[in-house]
Amino acid sequence: MEHILNYLRTHRRQHLAQLFELTRFPSVSTAAEHVEDVARCARFLADHLQSLGLTRVEVMPTPGHPIVYAEWLEASNAPTILIYGHYDVQPPEPLELWNSPPFEPQIREGEIYARGIADDKGQFFAYVKAMEAYFTEKGALPINVKLLIEGEEEIGSENLHAFVQEHRALLNADAILLSDTSMFAPGLPTICYGTRGLVHCQIDLETAATDLHSGAFGGFAPNPIHILAEMIAALKDKDGRITIPDFYEDVAELTPKEQAQFAALPYDEEALKREIGMEEFIGETGFSTLEKRWARPALDVNGILGGFTGTGTKTVIPAKAMAKFTIRLVPYQDPEKVFNAAKAYLEQLAPAAAKVSVTGGVGGSAYLTPLEHPILPLIAKALQQAYHQEPVFTRTGGTIGVLSTFSEALHLPIIMVGMAQPNDNAHAPNEHLTEELFYQGAEAAAYLLHELKTWKPA
Amino acid sequence: MEHILNYLRTHRRQHLAQLFELTRFPSVSTAAEHVEDVARCARFLADHLQSLGLTRVEVMPTPGHPIVYAEWLEASNAPTILIYGHYDVQPPEPLELWNSPPFEPQIREGEIYARGIADDKGQFFAYVKAMEAYFTEKGALPINVKLLIEGEEEIGSENLHAFVQEHRALLNADAILLSDTSMFAPGLPTICYGTRGLVHCQIDLETAATDLHSGAFGGFAPNPIHILAEMIAALKDKDGRITIPDFYEDVAELTPKEQAQFAALPYDEEALKREIGMEEFIGETGFSTLEKRWARPALDVNGILGGFTGTGTKTVIPAKAMAKFTIRLVPYQDPEKVFNAAKAYLEQLAPAAAKVSVTGGVGGSAYLTPLEHPILPLIAKALQQAYHQEPVFTRTGGTIGVLSTFSEALHLPIIMVGMAQPNDNAHAPNEHLTEELFYQGAEAAAYLLHELKTWKPA
Ligand SMILES: [Zn+2]
Ligand SMILES: [Zn+2]
Repeated sequence: MEHILNYLRTHRRQHLAQLFELTRFPSVSTAAEHVEDVARCARFLADHLQSLGLTRVEVMPTPGHPIVYAEWLEASNAPTILIYGHYDVQPPEPLELWNSPPFEPQIREGEIYARGIADDKGQFFAYVKAMEAYFTEKGALPINVKLLIEGEEEIGSENLHAFVQEHRALLNADAILLSDTSMFAPGLPTICYGTRGLVHCQIDLETAATDLHSGAFGGFAPNPIHILAEMIAALKDKDGRITIPDFYEDVAELTPKEQAQFAALPYDEEALKREIGMEEFIGETGFSTLEKRWARPALDVNGILGGFTGTGTKTVIPAKAMAKFTIRLVPYQDPEKVFNAAKAYLEQLAPAAAKVSVTGGVGGSAYLTPLEHPILPLIAKALQQAYHQEPVFTRTGGTIGVLSTFSEALHLPIIMVGMAQPNDNAHAPNEHLTEELFYQGAEAAAYLLHELKTWKPA
Repeated sequence: MEHILNYLRTHRRQHLAQLFELTRFPSVSTAAEHVEDVARCARFLADHLQSLGLTRVEVMPTPGHPIVYAEWLEASNAPTILIYGHYDVQPPEPLELWNSPPFEPQIREGEIYARGIADDKGQFFAYVKAMEAYFTEKGALPINVKLLIEGEEEIGSENLHAFVQEHRALLNADAILLSDTSMFAPGLPTICYGTRGLVHCQIDLETAATDLHSGAFGGFAPNPIHILAEMIAALKDKDGRITIPDFYEDVAELTPKEQAQFAALPYDEEALKREIGMEEFIGETGFSTLEKRWARPALDVNGILGGFTGTGTKTVIPAKAMAKFTIRLVPYQDPEKVFNAAKAYLEQLAPAAAKVSVTGGVGGSAYLTPLEHPILPLIAKALQQAYHQEPVFTRTGGTIGVLSTFSEALHLPIIMVGMAQPNDNAHAPNEHLTEELFYQGAEAAAYLLHELKTWKPA
C-alpha cells in the first residue's frame, strides 16, 4: 500500500486538474440542450479509463443517455466488485445563487465548488484514481473490477433497469460498491447498508356531479374534503402506526446491535430541528428519530387539493377532492403487496357517499445488507485506515432506485460508501466537496480494493 | 279588488313590455364596463316610479352603485311596509351557453328568458305594477309603502349596510317584504320566514421553514396535511354534530309545528339526489334533509390545499397546508361568538408541532320570523287568493346578507315571498321566469297590499 498511497499523494495536483476537467462538462441529463454535453462527458470518461489500463471500455448506448462501462478481470482467485457511479448532474439553476459559475470549478476555503463535484463526479472519480495508482505502481489491480457509470441518475435512472436486466452476465459480480451518498458527519467514514422502499398512491374522491352551494346543501350533502380528511386521519393510529391491515407483517425489526449503533451516532436532534425550522418531531411511539428515519416505515401525504383555494371566501361544497401520498417501506415489505393493501383499505374506508379511485404503484423496494455480512468488516477496515477513524454504520431513509434494480437483477450485496460530506448542496446552488475529502476518497478506494482481495465470497 | 285585478289583467301586454325594457339594461354590478348601464337602469326605474305616483323618488348615491328609493305614506291608520328588491344582475357569462342574447328578453314556451328576469327584476317589478293598478284605479295605495331597490345585491350588498344604518329614520317601517327568493315548487306560493347565518374561517398550518424530502424526514417530521386532516376530521363527531365547544348552546330547536310543515312539503329526495348526481345524503343524526338544510347548523370545508398537486409524484413533506371552511348558523347563534369559539377550538386542536393561524369572520346572522307572528296569516291569505293554493312555509339554508342588515338596523320582521319558480337559472345561463308567474306575482302583490291594510302592528 505504501507505493499506492505515495503515488496518490504525489499526484494530487494532476488528479484535481482531471477532476476539474470532468466537472467542466455540463452533463445535465434533464436538459435537452445538454444532450451533446452529456455524450461528450461520457466519451471523455471512457477515453480516460482506456488510457489507465481498464479493458473493454465502452460507451454503451441506451434509449436515453449512454452508460460508460469498463472492467479489469485479471485478478485470479480474487472477488469481482461492481462499482457504480453516475456522470450526469442536476441542473444548476437558479444560476444567480451561485457564487462562482457552476461549470467552472473553484476552490474557496478548502471547498471545491462545482455542479456535480459531490454528486457524483468527485466520488466515482476517486475509485478511478485509486485504480490508476495500482495500474501505474503494480500493473494490476488487487481484485477484479467492473465499472458502471451511468448518465441518467438525476432523471430517475430511466433506462438502467432494462440495461441491467439485459446485461446480467456482463455485470455479474460478488458485490456492488456504490459511492453516491454522504458521510453521516463531515469526515466521518460511513457505511450505509440499507435503504427504504417506496409506494406512491393518489386518492380521488367524487361525491357529486357538480360543485354545490353550501347554503342550499350544507348539512346533508357529503363533502369530499371531509371524507378525505377522515380517510387520511384514519391511516395512522394514536401511536403513529400505519393502520393498513397487515402492514407491519413483513417489517424487519431492528436488532439490538443496530439500535446501539444508531444511538451512538453523533446526532444533534435540536440542531436538526433548528436547521429545518421545526418545533417538534413526531412519529411512531417507541422509536428514536434515526430509527424512524431509516428503519421504520412512514406514510406521508405529499399533496392535497379540493374546492376553492384562492383569496377570500367561496361558499362551495366541492364535488371532488384529491390527495397524493407516499409510503416509505423497510425490508422486507413487498411494495406490490403494500400498494394493493393500501388500495383495498382506502376503498373500504371511503363511505358509500363517495366514489373513490386509488391509483399509484411501486417506486422501489427497500434494501438491506445484513449487518453480519462478511464483506462489511473488510470495508470497515479499509475506511478505518483511510480516515483514521472507526466508520459508522447507517442506513438511509430515501429510496435509491438503482439498488432495487441491482438487487432484483443481480442478487448481490450492495454497500454504499459515502465520500462526500453532508450538506454538500448536491441538488442546490453552490454544490461543493471538501478538497481533502477527494484525496481521502481516493485513498479509501485504494484501501477498499486492497482489503477486498482477502474476501472469499461464499 | 275587482278593479285592481281587472286593471292588471287588461294591461299585461304593456307591463310585459315595460319589464322587457327594464331587463334590457345590462345592469351587471360586478363589471366595471357596466357602471354606466347600472346608473341608467337606476334612472329609468326612478323615472318610472315617479310617473306612477310614488313620492320622494330618489336615486341615492352610495360609494358604489346607487340605491333607488321611493315611498308613498298617505294611508293613515295603515301599516308601513318596506319592500326590498335589487335592479342589478349577475354577469351573463358564459355567453355561448345562452339560447338567446341575455339582454334581449325572449319568450319561448311560456318562459321569459333574460338575465335578471327572475333575480330580481321580474319580482320587484310585480309590486310596482300592483301599485300602478292602485294609483290608477283608486288614486291611493291601501297601505304605506317604502321601496328600496338596490344596485349591489349580486356583489354582496357592499354599501347597503352603511346606507341602512345611516337612513334608519327614512327606512323605518312595520315590516319588510323581500321578493328575491324562489317558490318551493313551480307555482306553489311560498312564505320563507328564516335564513341561516354564516361564519367563514381559514386555517393555515406551518410545520417547517421549508418543504422536506419524505425519504430523509418521513416518519418523524410532522406533516401539516396530516395535522389538517385530523383537525378537520375532529370538527364533527360520529353523529355528524359539530364538536366546537358550546356550539349548540344558542340553537333554536325546531318546533313540532315546523317539523310537521317541513314534512308535508312536496319534496322528492331521490329526485334531488339524481339531479345533483349524489349517491347518498349524510349529516346530523335525527333530522330530516329539509331540517338539516334549513334549521340545523352545518360546517363545510370549501377548499383545501397543500404540497404537490400536479401530475405524477413528488416525494415531499410540505411545510404548509391550508383549508377554508364555512359554518352555516341558525337562530339564535351569535356569529361573532361562534367564530371566536371555532378559532379557540382549532388553536387547541393543533399540536405543538404546528404553527396555526385561524382567520376569518362573520358573513351574516341567521334570521327567523317566529311562526306565530300575526303578519303571517295575512300574507298567507293574500297568496292563497292570488295563487288559489295554500301557501307553504319554508326557510332557506343560505345566508341573505340584507336580512342581517335590516334586522340589525331596523329590528323589523322580514318575510320573503318568492315569485320565481325554482330552477330559474338565476346565476346561470338561460335565466328564465314563467310569463304567467309574472302576472300572478303582480296580483299577489296587489293582494298583499290589500290584506296588510287590516294588520295592526303592536
Ligand atoms: Zn447522485
Ligand atoms: Zn337576487
